[in-house]
Amino acid sequence: MRLTLCAALLLASPAFAYEPLVEKQEFTLNDFVTRGGETIPEMRLGYETYGTLNEAKDNAILIPHFFSGNSHAAGKYAEDDAAPGYWDAIIGSGKAIDTDKWFVVSVDSPVNLGANDPNVITTGPASINPATNEPWGMDFPILTIGDFVDTQKGLMDQLGIPKWHAVMGASMGGLQSYEWAARYPDKLERVIPVISSGWADADLIAWLDVWASPIRLDPNWNGGDYYGGEAPNAGLAQALKIVTLHANSAEWANSKFGRNWASEGADPGKDWANDYLVVETLNAAGATRAATSDANHFLYLVRANQQFVAGHPDGNIYQGLLDIDVPVMLIHTDEDLVFPGNAVRDTAAIIKSDGTPVEIVELEGINGHLDGVLNMSQAAGPIKAFLEAE
Amino acid sequence: MRLTLCAALLLASPAFAYEPLVEKQEFTLNDFVTRGGETIPEMRLGYETYGTLNEAKDNAILIPHFFSGNSHAAGKYAEDDAAPGYWDAIIGSGKAIDTDKWFVVSVDSPVNLGANDPNVITTGPASINPATNEPWGMDFPILTIGDFVDTQKGLMDQLGIPKWHAVMGASMGGLQSYEWAARYPDKLERVIPVISSGWADADLIAWLDVWASPIRLDPNWNGGDYYGGEAPNAGLAQALKIVTLHANSAEWANSKFGRNWASEGADPGKDWANDYLVVETLNAAGATRAATSDANHFLYLVRANQQFVAGHPDGNIYQGLLDIDVPVMLIHTDEDLVFPGNAVRDTAAIIKSDGTPVEIVELEGINGHLDGVLNMSQAAGPIKAFLEAE
Repeated sequence: MRLTLCAALLLASPAFAYEPLVEKQEFTLNDFVTRGGETIPEMRLGYETYGTLNEAKDNAILIPHFFSGNSHAAGKYAEDDAAPGYWDAIIGSGKAIDTDKWFVVSVDSPVNLGANDPNVITTGPASINPATNEPWGMDFPILTIGDFVDTQKGLMDQLGIPKWHAVMGASMGGLQSYEWAARYPDKLERVIPVISSGWADADLIAWLDVWASPIRLDPNWNGGDYYGGEAPNAGLAQALKIVTLHANSAEWANSKFGRNWASEGADPGKDWANDYLVVETLNAAGATRAATSDANHFLYLVRANQQFVAGHPDGNIYQGLLDIDVPVMLIHTDEDLVFPGNAVRDTAAIIKSDGTPVEIVELEGINGHLDGVLNMSQAAGPIKAFLEAE
Repeated sequence: MRLTLCAALLLASPAFAYEPLVEKQEFTLNDFVTRGGETIPEMRLGYETYGTLNEAKDNAILIPHFFSGNSHAAGKYAEDDAAPGYWDAIIGSGKAIDTDKWFVVSVDSPVNLGANDPNVITTGPASINPATNEPWGMDFPILTIGDFVDTQKGLMDQLGIPKWHAVMGASMGGLQSYEWAARYPDKLERVIPVISSGWADADLIAWLDVWASPIRLDPNWNGGDYYGGEAPNAGLAQALKIVTLHANSAEWANSKFGRNWASEGADPGKDWANDYLVVETLNAAGATRAATSDANHFLYLVRANQQFVAGHPDGNIYQGLLDIDVPVMLIHTDEDLVFPGNAVRDTAAIIKSDGTPVEIVELEGINGHLDGVLNMSQAAGPIKAFLEAE
């Protein structure tokens, strides 16, 4: 009796991380040809899985990650990890994405930001170009979200999975989800793009450039040629600061920091060395994150996102969305500054204009865009129902 | 008959710039003491006036300017000027601020951004420190919005004006308007803060720091010591790019630029030298503007704005607003990303909580924050009535 009550409470608000412990795995695609027609001799990428692939191989769910994320979506690598993967609240036994039923595949993207993070396996400008035995730098081919999806299709083939039960992801992971549904409509059963829209509009293109601009100003960036010397981590830290602020909301900044100074007695009006707590906190977070990231990878991610138009990178913004024929669930929040509510609603309007079913789930919270990463348990019920619908 | 019709049309939508031609004037405050207790031996500032001061000297309206603005609020310096001052649509004979009735005083701020603009007269880090005969650089005292207001009080005394009929301004000019009403409640009859709130919250403090960060990354900035060499205009241009984007709206970017490339055939997915039209346009605007601006002045403006709490820079956020007792008109737009609607409504709630009358006018448009500069003719009727109310 007591166990049953406990299980019910767990279902309502899962308190335990996905079990068992998670291991990063790796796959390689040889002579990977980009949509732009360039060949990358060796594309090495990491991935994680949660749950068990069934014999029919028809219970697999793919999760591509967001801009600054990686494939660590659930669970822990070791019991004493400070935190589990980013979507652990919705991935696990009895959770929204029930790992007793589903086999979740979460994949590191090419040009992943965390090129210097030991828990990320990626290929990009910081990798060695076999032709020169030097890091690629800015000679690495410019990639698209479509290329990211094609690496996942390579893994799908290696795992022998004929069709995803679902593809779902947050932000840039949502773009990859749209791309799967638009480009490979017979390779998935349903799609859940979270906090993302069907194309990068001018506003997003410009903001992504704002994110990138501190890197190009850092003298250590040196046109992308810095692998022999000091990395442009001051610029990268500022870039990551902008991302953090932009991906949150005013309510987050105001409720968490107010007008407090970084140090008691250190008035920012008295000395340039003094600053506000919100600024110091963002700077520190940016610097910490920069230490495991790569500046050129950041620029490649920006360009991949800027180019995004679901299914048709060179084409119009509606054709790819009209090509989506599987059921769609869009999860977003109107407090999102990166993918505003209007952009998500416009996307929904186009997808359903030819009869494709679209369900919209609104998130609430003070984290703006990041509510789609941090507060997904709110959407657990709709996600579970959507995944389990016959 | 024809003339009358013509005049009526003009009144409805003024098509002509304020007349006569405008001249920049100058005033000097010797041994100006900042609120922080530091002395600036010579504070030289520019100003412009429109209309005529009456004998009683009771028809004067003060207009402080916004972050990247200056005292050129109306009219032209020469017949062939490309454009008149920024609020010309509401300043002039028969317009909302009717120069047949009112004498408008528009003032350059200290640490004005346009330190290298021949039409700006300002004193700041780019000015010569009489003690060293070198530019002040970052040794210039850190100023507050209250200091800006005190320079205007100095001009008020020199002009022999006992009381402003009104103080009104946009954005940072709105902050100065709040400050006048909170700090010198017996020196003005009414106040119109436009696109601004009564204090800088954590969100604004953080965004202002984002604006500033490209300057500090430019190696030419050199801790603010660059007056003998090359100025950090690459960083300053990026800073101004961020301001332009942040002060507009997504609708502006999307309707004006779409996903167009900067040059036909130059696909940003093919070469790092290629870019999107929205990015190229913002970069070009930033670079043009940087040429007449000063990077250290930008940093001083940021810090002045970050410190702002109406009337009580070191105090709580409501006392200064409760000190406001003159009638208030707040003009803003909910599309504003810099001073969001919530911040303006919170400000109004506090001011009127002790019975002070507050009228709110909502602007519409696609320019976000900048609608308070570019599209003020929408508010002409309410402004005119508010200024002319007995």
